[in-house]
Amino acid sequence: MVRIGLDVGGTGIQIGVVDEEGRILEKGSIVTRIDLPFAEQVAQMAACALDTLARSGHKLEEVVSIGAGVPGISQRDTGVVVYCPNMNWVHVPFREEFRKHIDRPVFIDNDATVAGLAESVTGVSAGTSSSVFLTLGTGVGGGIIIGGKVWSGAHGVGSEIGHMILELDGEPCTCGNHGCLERYCSATAIIRMAREQLKVHPGSAMMAMCHSDPAKMNAKIVFDAAKDGDEVALKVFRRYVRYLGQAISNVVNFFDPEIIVLGGGVSKAGSFLLDAVRAEVPKYILYKELPFARIEIASLGSDAGIIGAAMLQ
Amino acid sequence: MVRIGLDVGGTGIQIGVVDEEGRILEKGSIVTRIDLPFAEQVAQMAACALDTLARSGHKLEEVVSIGAGVPGISQRDTGVVVYCPNMNWVHVPFREEFRKHIDRPVFIDNDATVAGLAESVTGVSAGTSSSVFLTLGTGVGGGIIIGGKVWSGAHGVGSEIGHMILELDGEPCTCGNHGCLERYCSATAIIRMAREQLKVHPGSAMMAMCHSDPAKMNAKIVFDAAKDGDEVALKVFRRYVRYLGQAISNVVNFFDPEIIVLGGGVSKAGSFLLDAVRAEVPKYILYKELPFARIEIASLGSDAGIIGAAMLQ
Repeated sequence: MVRIGLDVGGTGIQIGVVDEEGRILEKGSIVTRIDLPFAEQVAQMAACALDTLARSGHKLEEVVSIGAGVPGISQRDTGVVVYCPNMNWVHVPFREEFRKHIDRPVFIDNDATVAGLAESVTGVSAGTSSSVFLTLGTGVGGGIIIGGKVWSGAHGVGSEIGHMILELDGEPCTCGNHGCLERYCSATAIIRMAREQLKVHPGSAMMAMCHSDPAKMNAKIVFDAAKDGDEVALKVFRRYVRYLGQAISNVVNFFDPEIIVLGGGVSKAGSFLLDAVRAEVPKYILYKELPFARIEIASLGSDAGIIGAAMLQ
Repeated sequence: MVRIGLDVGGTGIQIGVVDEEGRILEKGSIVTRIDLPFAEQVAQMAACALDTLARSGHKLEEVVSIGAGVPGISQRDTGVVVYCPNMNWVHVPFREEFRKHIDRPVFIDNDATVAGLAESVTGVSAGTSSSVFLTLGTGVGGGIIIGGKVWSGAHGVGSEIGHMILELDGEPCTCGNHGCLERYCSATAIIRMAREQLKVHPGSAMMAMCHSDPAKMNAKIVFDAAKDGDEVALKVFRRYVRYLGQAISNVVNFFDPEIIVLGGGVSKAGSFLLDAVRAEVPKYILYKELPFARIEIASLGSDAGIIGAAMLQ
């Protein structure tokens, strides 16, 4: 038996046929066409899924379920995607539409949640009793896994860790609030802090690395310059690690999962980031002498979206 | 069959014999003697438990389990209380010592967690799939209940909601951190804010209500003056509600429980507080058009400690 996973994003949709252990057997992809009507978008996804399934050598009768990870929020019971700005979807009946093409159980969840599930099935958090996944990218997404199952809350609006308030009346957020965690812990936050520093310290090595154009700043430039010992980049890096350490300590003090997994673009900084964060977190947790969550970097990379979606149930 | 619950506090220990539905059949209490050696403290508790059991008309063979709620942290697997400052306990083998007197299963958990469990068994959150309990008192305690069972995390250090950081570099906390949630959402926070306001606005009605001695300020004075329309008290009240609203929205955005229950001394303000908080929370949650947690005031009062401890398993 196999499962089909769809990693739905604003630029492309990755589709995979996955076995029961979470191994990808065959992959396909289509370009996202947000200009098309919703029904046609779904028809294209289903056609690619069937094509990928055929190439995998498996038959439709072998498909246990189809899952989709979307950068937005959906309702578990109805299969309706309530809101997914990158796809221009507002209250679209994804499950109902998809089953017109492939009549199998269809599950939908948030992309960060799905990536967290993938890691807990076959990645760095496999075998743990509970995990919290943080995607550190343009924003900060969250996924909570308890006993191998996704926890999206009683109403499906949970695990939005990026929009927890970390600073009262802090930085304005895209959501309309102020001081959301993602304003301090995302790649966007690193870039903002680096640009602020370049205004005061234009002699930083980061200036040359972004070709004297702070608009070209990215998180990798900050990490690379910090690794090379650039004092201004190190200042940004340390400040970011401090924020992320406090955010992670909030997850520990509230939920105390067995493991906290860092994914998303920022996590590509690897051990340089991980070592610093592991040193920072103990400063903020309440019971400093007791064991608490392991902190690890995600291991599945971009395949997590397909694998986790396929494993939804 | 019956259960015995111990509500362990720094001034007194309340003990109850409780039936399987969480009803208190008989009560007893002793004064806390932190001057005594640990073994003697436990001996006194066990003696009172046996006395209360005898008065309830039940026999030792009918006791399913004994539970203790302590204002501190304990290890579920060993029954050791790791740290309980009000009792002067550091790494004391509570279960082992207690079973020398009454050889039944002994469970221990945090007092806020235990109160949350009580509410979910026979109080305002009974029958819910998940709940988060907040005690708003001198500090802020937290209890997480999932599927009728206590969630204290993978290492037992979770549900310390009062020590989540709500403001980066904010008010100094007794735990050594800065900006902990309890610095903004406890009775202590209300008192601090009221005293600050009295310095600037000594003409507030609150001044007379604390007999011109701000050292006598308490949360009830602030709520009473606010209800009477005192502008300075209303300012403190609104600021407190704003902080509490943001704290509660963090619980929704992270964990999305079915219900959030407010207990502790501050919750005695009842609907005056509840109505204001219910109006405030939607400003900060991410998905404003979707259902989210009901917010309610705890219903069991001071019995919650006994009932919840008895229901530990």
